[in-house]
This record gives sequence, structure tokens and C-alpha cells, in this order.
Amino acid sequence: MADTTDEPSPTAGPRVNRIPEGDNQLRLVCPDCGFINYENPKIVVGSVVTWDGKVLLCKRAINPRRGYWTIPAGYLELNETAVDGAQREAREEACVDIEIDALLAVYNVPRISQVQLIYRARLLSPDYAAGEESLAVDLFDWSDIPWSNLAFPSVTWALRHFQEIGDATAFNPFGNPLGELGDYGPGGGDSSDAASGS
Amino acid sequence: MADTTDEPSPTAGPRVNRIPEGDNQLRLVCPDCGFINYENPKIVVGSVVTWDGKVLLCKRAINPRRGYWTIPAGYLELNETAVDGAQREAREEACVDIEIDALLAVYNVPRISQVQLIYRARLLSPDYAAGEESLAVDLFDWSDIPWSNLAFPSVTWALRHFQEIGDATAFNPFGNPLGELGDYGPGGGDSSDAASGS
Repeated sequence: MADTTDEPSPTAGPRVNRIPEGDNQLRLVCPDCGFINYENPKIVVGSVVTWDGKVLLCKRAINPRRGYWTIPAGYLELNETAVDGAQREAREEACVDIEIDALLAVYNVPRISQVQLIYRARLLSPDYAAGEESLAVDLFDWSDIPWSNLAFPSVTWALRHFQEIGDATAFNPFGNPLGELGDYGPGGGDSSDAASGS
Repeated sequence: MADTTDEPSPTAGPRVNRIPEGDNQLRLVCPDCGFINYENPKIVVGSVVTWDGKVLLCKRAINPRRGYWTIPAGYLELNETAVDGAQREAREEACVDIEIDALLAVYNVPRISQVQLIYRARLLSPDYAAGEESLAVDLFDWSDIPWSNLAFPSVTWALRHFQEIGDATAFNPFGNPLGELGDYGPGGGDSSDAASGS
């Protein structure tokens, strides 16, 4: 009996925790078909993109955090390099071609098993448009960035780190701000937290 | 009927390619239970570890590339930060505690959907031993590194990049050497290539 929803049903698919032979970790196994669901952290790739000193932001058309602003970012796909993935996300979400300049930051959100590779990038021309996953796309002067309506903590981190590094060319990528793990503060939001996945 | 081998049988588990509703990519779906197997690239974390100018290498006790030398590295686990993962791999493979200093490189091996985060690190004391996945562990003078018996292309890249950067503190992490994608050259080896997964 095929269940065609996107979430595995609790009574179908991998649902029994077992340590497979030769492994040392519990994995979710399907008792019906024997399939072992090896899960690993996911990679989010994104970029702080600028044109003439302005920053490109996208208003999310999808949940989590629909209606909030984000940098172009999303899950790396199979057989894709991180840079190619960041460029694809910028194309998909903001219909732009970008030139990637440096790795700005590596953020970790361990609670949701995410590693984010965030690049510094430039627009090749100031032509942009809302992609399918965006309600709007715009270039913001620094003073106009909607800080209180950013989608995820890591978007704030990336913009702050971008500002901090300026035009420096040789630098170590930033990590999470000290003590921050990407969780919302009190009253902050839903269970999807720092995920900027598309 | 439970199939308890580690490889899903071609006649059990996710085995039908279908684009799930709301998605834009083909995913492997199980026609028996409806489970959707979302696959994403995996993250390998590792480090070039030194003590008093010598480099720590581990002789692999497991395939792929059993008997060849590698830096401590392996797959990042769920709910783990990249730095924590690199430290865990050093403990597991060489029984050492390491202090991570900087992100040395981000390598991509798109054919096997791998992103490798390789750090520069120091031993906290020169005490090491072969972990369960190592046949031997040793500290090598630079001139004694077994270049022709390294396990994966990315091990060679990491050591060369480590040498190139010296003691520099502010630098951009290296990427793949120009034109290299982690595949073996002619006659080079098996299908596991640059994977330094444990």
C-alpha cells in the first residue's frame, strides 16, 4: 500500500532503530523491506550578494518563515559542488547570476544537523526578479536592511560578518557567533530555526 | 520479510524514481511502504595534525584503500558540529586529542557527492595509538611522508596545501587544485576515489 505523502507514516517506511552489522550507530530501519536509512547532516549553501554597495535579499514565499527576508541559500544537491550550489540557489530564488569571491562563513546548526557554507558574491548585473520560492527580491542599502524581519539567525550572522570583513581578501571564514547555535531566542519562532533550506 | 543486509535489495526498499508532490527533483521512493529517500551530499571532516613539525598519518584498516595512509577524517554525524566531528575522527582513528586552529580547505568531490572540510590542527601531546579503523598511526617528518601510498587524492591536496600556507593565520581556505575533481588518474584505483569516509 503506497503512502504518497512526503512524510513517512509512522506505520510505514524506516521506523525501527537498530545498529546495522559493522556499524556503531543506531539507524532507522524499515522492518517491512529491510531498507536502512543512513542519515547525515545536510549542507546549506548560500551567499551574501551585493551590487554597488547594496545587499540582495529575498522575501520567502515558502515555509518555514514565509514572508521573512533571507539571503539566497538552500540545500546542496547530489553531484553538485558547493560553489555551483550557491550559484544555483541565487538563480532559483532571485533570477541572478553571481560571481563568488570568497568563503565568508561556515555555520553549524547541530540541533537540526546543518552545516552552512556562506559565500561573499557580486551580482554580474543589477537585474533580478522573484523566483518561484520568493515573494519579492530587492537590493537594500545597508541602513534599510530589515533586521527584525530576517528569516533565520544565520542570515543575521552572515550580514554582520559580511560587514565586519569589509573588502578584506585574506581571512578565515567566520563561524557561529560565540555561544550561538542557531536557535531562536525566547518567543522567536518555529521548529525550523536557522534552516535556510529551500 | 526483513532483509537485514546493509545494502538495500533491488527488489526491496526505495527503488522507484518519482518526483514527490511539491518537489522538483526525482527521488527514490519505496513502492511498498511509500518512504521517500531524500539524498543529499555528505560532509567529510578531517584535519592535518602536527606535533613538533611532524604530520600525523593513519594507515587504514578498512576499505576503501585499506593499507594506505590518510589524515584522520570521516563522515560528520547527526547533531555534530564540523569541528567536533574532526576532533572525534582524530580520537577514533588515532586516539589523540587535537586543537583545531583554522579551516585549511573545502574540497568537493561531486561525482560521489562529498564536501570535505579539512582543518589545520595540533596534537596536545605526542601520545597516539591505532584506533579500530587504523592498522598503524605515526608522526612523519615531511621528507618521510609516503606520497605514493596516500589513500585518496584529497589527502595529497591537504598535505600540499598545509605546506603551502605554512604558519599563516589569515587566509582563505583552499579548494580543489585547478581541474581536479578527486578522481583517480588512469590505473589509480577503485570506485571510492577521494572518499575519506570511515
